Amino acid sequence: MRKKLSGSKLLLGGVLIVSAVLLHSCKQSSARETGSNRQTVLKDLAQYVDPMIGTAKMGHTYPGATLPFGSIQLSPDTDTIPYAVDGKYNPDVYKYCAGYQYDDETIVGFSHTHFSGTGHSDLGDFLIMPTTGDLKLNPGTAADPDSGYRSRFSHDNETAEPGYYSVLLEDYNIKAEMTATSRVGMHQYTFPEAGKSHIILDLVSGIYNYDDKNVWTFVRVENDTLVTGYRQTNGWARTRKVYFALSFSKPINNYGRERYDRQPYNGFWRKFDQDENFPEIAGEKIRMYFDFDMKTNEKLNIKLAISPVSAEGALQNMKKEMPHWNFEQVKTEAREIWNKELNKVIVETEKPEDMVNFYTAMYHAFLGPTEYMDTDGRYRGIDMGIHKAEGFTNYTSFSLWDTYRALHPLFNVLQPKRNADMVKAMLAHYDQSVHSMLPVWSHYANENWCMIGYHSVSVIADAIVKGNANFDQERALAAMVQTAKTGYYDGLQYYMDMGYVPEDKNGASVSKTLEYAYDDWAIAQAAKKLGKNDIFEEFMKRSENYKNVFDPKSGFMRPKLSDGSFKKEFDALDTHGQGFIEGNAWNYSLYVPHAPAEMIEMMGGKERFSQHLDSLFTMELPDKYFENTEDISREGIIGNYVHGNEPSHHVAYLYNWTDTPWKSQDKIRMVLKDQYQTGADGLGGNDDFGQMSAWYIFSALGFYPVAPGSEEYALGSPAINEATINLDNGNTFKVTAQNQSEENVFVEKVELNGKQLQTPFIKHAEIMKGGELKFYMANTPNRKLYE
Amino acid sequence: MRKKLSGSKLLLGGVLIVSAVLLHSCKQSSARETGSNRQTVLKDLAQYVDPMIGTAKMGHTYPGATLPFGSIQLSPDTDTIPYAVDGKYNPDVYKYCAGYQYDDETIVGFSHTHFSGTGHSDLGDFLIMPTTGDLKLNPGTAADPDSGYRSRFSHDNETAEPGYYSVLLEDYNIKAEMTATSRVGMHQYTFPEAGKSHIILDLVSGIYNYDDKNVWTFVRVENDTLVTGYRQTNGWARTRKVYFALSFSKPINNYGRERYDRQPYNGFWRKFDQDENFPEIAGEKIRMYFDFDMKTNEKLNIKLAISPVSAEGALQNMKKEMPHWNFEQVKTEAREIWNKELNKVIVETEKPEDMVNFYTAMYHAFLGPTEYMDTDGRYRGIDMGIHKAEGFTNYTSFSLWDTYRALHPLFNVLQPKRNADMVKAMLAHYDQSVHSMLPVWSHYANENWCMIGYHSVSVIADAIVKGNANFDQERALAAMVQTAKTGYYDGLQYYMDMGYVPEDKNGASVSKTLEYAYDDWAIAQAAKKLGKNDIFEEFMKRSENYKNVFDPKSGFMRPKLSDGSFKKEFDALDTHGQGFIEGNAWNYSLYVPHAPAEMIEMMGGKERFSQHLDSLFTMELPDKYFENTEDISREGIIGNYVHGNEPSHHVAYLYNWTDTPWKSQDKIRMVLKDQYQTGADGLGGNDDFGQMSAWYIFSALGFYPVAPGSEEYALGSPAINEATINLDNGNTFKVTAQNQSEENVFVEKVELNGKQLQTPFIKHAEIMKGGELKFYMANTPNRKLYE
Repeated sequence: MRKKLSGSKLLLGGVLIVSAVLLHSCKQSSARETGSNRQTVLKDLAQYVDPMIGTAKMGHTYPGATLPFGSIQLSPDTDTIPYAVDGKYNPDVYKYCAGYQYDDETIVGFSHTHFSGTGHSDLGDFLIMPTTGDLKLNPGTAADPDSGYRSRFSHDNETAEPGYYSVLLEDYNIKAEMTATSRVGMHQYTFPEAGKSHIILDLVSGIYNYDDKNVWTFVRVENDTLVTGYRQTNGWARTRKVYFALSFSKPINNYGRERYDRQPYNGFWRKFDQDENFPEIAGEKIRMYFDFDMKTNEKLNIKLAISPVSAEGALQNMKKEMPHWNFEQVKTEAREIWNKELNKVIVETEKPEDMVNFYTAMYHAFLGPTEYMDTDGRYRGIDMGIHKAEGFTNYTSFSLWDTYRALHPLFNVLQPKRNADMVKAMLAHYDQSVHSMLPVWSHYANENWCMIGYHSVSVIADAIVKGNANFDQERALAAMVQTAKTGYYDGLQYYMDMGYVPEDKNGASVSKTLEYAYDDWAIAQAAKKLGKNDIFEEFMKRSENYKNVFDPKSGFMRPKLSDGSFKKEFDALDTHGQGFIEGNAWNYSLYVPHAPAEMIEMMGGKERFSQHLDSLFTMELPDKYFENTEDISREGIIGNYVHGNEPSHHVAYLYNWTDTPWKSQDKIRMVLKDQYQTGADGLGGNDDFGQMSAWYIFSALGFYPVAPGSEEYALGSPAINEATINLDNGNTFKVTAQNQSEENVFVEKVELNGKQLQTPFIKHAEIMKGGELKFYMANTPNRKLYE
Repeated sequence: MRKKLSGSKLLLGGVLIVSAVLLHSCKQSSARETGSNRQTVLKDLAQYVDPMIGTAKMGHTYPGATLPFGSIQLSPDTDTIPYAVDGKYNPDVYKYCAGYQYDDETIVGFSHTHFSGTGHSDLGDFLIMPTTGDLKLNPGTAADPDSGYRSRFSHDNETAEPGYYSVLLEDYNIKAEMTATSRVGMHQYTFPEAGKSHIILDLVSGIYNYDDKNVWTFVRVENDTLVTGYRQTNGWARTRKVYFALSFSKPINNYGRERYDRQPYNGFWRKFDQDENFPEIAGEKIRMYFDFDMKTNEKLNIKLAISPVSAEGALQNMKKEMPHWNFEQVKTEAREIWNKELNKVIVETEKPEDMVNFYTAMYHAFLGPTEYMDTDGRYRGIDMGIHKAEGFTNYTSFSLWDTYRALHPLFNVLQPKRNADMVKAMLAHYDQSVHSMLPVWSHYANENWCMIGYHSVSVIADAIVKGNANFDQERALAAMVQTAKTGYYDGLQYYMDMGYVPEDKNGASVSKTLEYAYDDWAIAQAAKKLGKNDIFEEFMKRSENYKNVFDPKSGFMRPKLSDGSFKKEFDALDTHGQGFIEGNAWNYSLYVPHAPAEMIEMMGGKERFSQHLDSLFTMELPDKYFENTEDISREGIIGNYVHGNEPSHHVAYLYNWTDTPWKSQDKIRMVLKDQYQTGADGLGGNDDFGQMSAWYIFSALGFYPVAPGSEEYALGSPAINEATINLDNGNTFKVTAQNQSEENVFVEKVELNGKQLQTPFIKHAEIMKGGELKFYMANTPNRKLYE
């Protein structure tokens, strides 16, 4: 049983009129825009978005204020527990990947940077907390909130909307509100009583906070309303530096700091009292306070801008994006910007909660990668140098092992300009990389190497093959090839030499072999499109390496040793130590997205394969195996099918390559219904920076990119009644599902622009030129649908 | 008895012909040049320079290779002992302020940045050591050199010359040689035998090395000959960052690193072997090695460039300053650049060792402040932002409490362009300072606040008053005034409110009161010159505050409490806890350089004062008081006169304000002879970034700036036979001392341009317009000389 923890206030059919003037005024905040301006009337689809979805359990989303792809994610952190206690890893830290856990009863403060849905984490920069009464500079504990500056709160007094978050901090009776432009967060605190009030700026606090994650912080109190500085950390990102500029709406009365690290030599004697009102502060672990005399019900506003470049850059960002103190204006503009993005798909669903699921998925899909440059285009590169993005918007936070699957393909439909810019950001990363590698997990001018494969090549190949390639394609192909030949990367030399990664040389060897093979196929597709036959042939050959780890005897992909024999011990249900990562052999053996037909043949033919898939979805996974399954809650599993992790995301569509495509249809609908629900605990696993949400969006619309790098989408079963995709090129692609309902999940027939389809596939170009995909739904399968 | 530890190879009368072509080729390395090019024949005065002088005991000089005011000081470090052992300060660390102690028998390696003669320290960046045999990555100990990579050496196999240093590393039989341009050091290692050789790059090593001084280091092995990165430290400078680019003359075979700090999270599992041949390295404490296969007697060259801005900046500095691998060319050009600076004063002395003392003093005087910007003018400011020096050379390492006294006045004669640029650098510091203060001790984009006073104002006032003011004088005056009104600085609010710093509120209160009073007078002089009468009067009034701490009863300046009474306990011989810093009441009470006549009157009149001074120079200072005297060896004291510390530097000249000026003459000669000798232990105290040397140069030439900010120099007793000062304005000022010898120290008469002087003073303008100052010397005083 799953509790429904939060509901969305449904203002059905609400329509927001956006004047041209307002659209113009927020233009600079909304990054480079493309496409037509045909829409002057936007629906208020933001009303359907519930940022609380995924904030409980393993969803790892945050409820705070942010813009689409915005640099700032200003959100409450309900705890900042240490990564390790007495040198031992503290597993609870994992709950706080996004800083917020719905079941918590206290809020520590509001920090400005958060990843959405990631399976590991970082960030949580520049935590701010308003307090009254005696000054407390430590956060205290959830068990004893009065021991520190944190405050109790209740969901009853909490609101989360696109671009806006508010909560009542009960311990102080302070109403906290926040909104944001891309690079600037605005706080608004309403103090209940006249008297001395504090703003805490906790520079120690952070997400996934090692005791010594902070490398250095530096602060200058420039004048009585402006504070600047930076924070440098060594966490998931090894060498990460974020600058800030913080402006108060009224003058500081008094301020000070505590430094919690060792005090190295700093002058022959203390010439100053550096604890209070001393405007230059530096150290490893610093907490600051700023005191204000507040009147009853007076509001204190704070603007905090960030920059990857310099304090001056942060200040410029603040001046350009938020040159005023009008909280309501920022909030209204933020919602408009969100509505603009959400209006790219107008859906009608059978049930109200499906509107919530759909637009919350849209919202989560558009949270990252995030813009990573100052308003003047400058940013810190992975070489630690300062670069300028010439003619594109630079992005960071590429969780590529997740997002190459459906999120970037979704961007090729809904965010083509941004996706091409993301490729440019990847190429800039490549140019600056001392490894001469495209990003694996690009993270604020760092490579955190997270997960496996080199899936940048998939993103780039998909863009090239689909013709969304406003970048230097030849240079991109060279970068893809170079990346795929970096021998010292993660077993790759073995793979190149032997055709597989040997498990005795490099763990998770089967997962790596399979993903390299797919990536190689993607490179081949790009090479083909660009007429580079040598590269095409070389990488098509590499793409067949999946065959080298298939064990016909067991029927599974299976770890092979460097002597060519399969590793003896093997448990196809277990996730750990079996040659896989985030998936067992049952799930991962199906990972040949680029050659499903060959895989099916290899695995015994269509009929046997179809039954094999049936087993996957229906078998019982004993608890002992679940305990070894990473990153998901029990709800993230259907039978032995793991939707909460990514490697199986294409699996429900594989029936399309058998003679039983209708099985895809009901499986997809089962996953949509089971894995995506309203409420804080609505997500079965990490949203993974929008990949889970992108799966929802595609699948709800009735098609899915099984193999990015191909022009084809496999059809499924649309979960909407009608959807209008407003493409940036001015065209409109409409999906209708006649007779669709929770029962009518089977496709009776499907027409593209009035012509019945004979295969369960459509092409990207068919979407982009506009038209209508019309499904006729029924409650029983049409077994002759695609014959 | 003092040992003569090192001798200089005297090639008397050596003349070096410098071709126009060569001068041109080294132009970019020698910073902006001014003045005439009249000299095409330079004397090889570099032959007289012995960089070893001051490397023993308390001199704190370094013997390595550097250019005049060069950014790089590439020098051997004989130890890198920790600042503290078991949390307790290790006093031995003080010996290693410049990294080198002459009495040591091992060399740890060669690092690229060193302060010259400072009383506290920092730097020692990027230590490099060549080794052979088994790889050792720890430096080992002096007691057991074989326990680490350090090597034994002998002074017999060591050479130190301007711009060049070499030594034989006995443990490896490697000949190490080094030379430098301003921003690039070049190493040359000759390996004796074929085989595997290592270059250690120790990024943990540093001067005054706290266990946790290293904040972060970052390294990229860009290709098989190029390495870049940075080092960030928290030492004397709180937040200091230096970038480097390192180039090898032959390809690296193999490389690796050890990381000695805790290993925070860095990915879910180790995808790579990051210890070996992994090109991206970061952490708090890292040591690297680079292996090379060397042939017998093969030379390996290394270029290491530094930058305050970025690795790219360092690389550009290397490309612009040293675009070749010709070690001999760099060495030759370095010597030429030194000769060009040394030829600004051509002296003839009675004894050869006086040539060594004079030109070594010139050498030491021209070691700092150091150029602090990339070849494109960009540098890191104290606000941590990147700035560009527009139309001037930016400098750092201003040890102003020392150098305002004689070094900057010397620059107004010999380095006018540089001194004006130094003022511009101070004003840039002021603009970037969150305190809106001119520098106290400016240190690689940090303010280390060392010592007392705000002596930037003296340097600026001296430049304004002397007309060497190619900077915005009004802006400079505003900065001086603003600095002098920063109430929270070091007791200054008390001083402004009460006319003195009360000892119970702020220690070293008398020293502070006296120095503030002098600084205030300097501001007044600048204001007067600029016609700002209000400021002149305001600060002339403040400049009389010295009177407030004079105790007529004891005849000394004495600490006063906030209730207006003098502190009861008082020992005029003690240095500690008596209201003074680096000087006892005997010495410090004489610190009214701007009003000697008034001070003498206050202290009982000319005759009594003259006797008082006699006592200072002749009394016996008991050992227990010496032990409390900071920063000097026993040799730094004459009687109770402390020359090794700065506050008394004007004292020997004070007899000029009594009726006994001849006493100045013999005291000055006594100090010159006693305190400046050849040999490694030739200096009685810290050279203090050239202040001690500047005292020598002025005094040897026969005049001294008792009160910088005044146009006047007080005359003493020249210790040269003849000196020609080649001024940048094309004029020549000649000093001759007829009949001068070690015995003939008294001035019989003195003529300026043939006209006998009636007072022991000359004016700056008289020097700058050229001419001749002719002393007639005798072995007995002329008691009617200035009557």
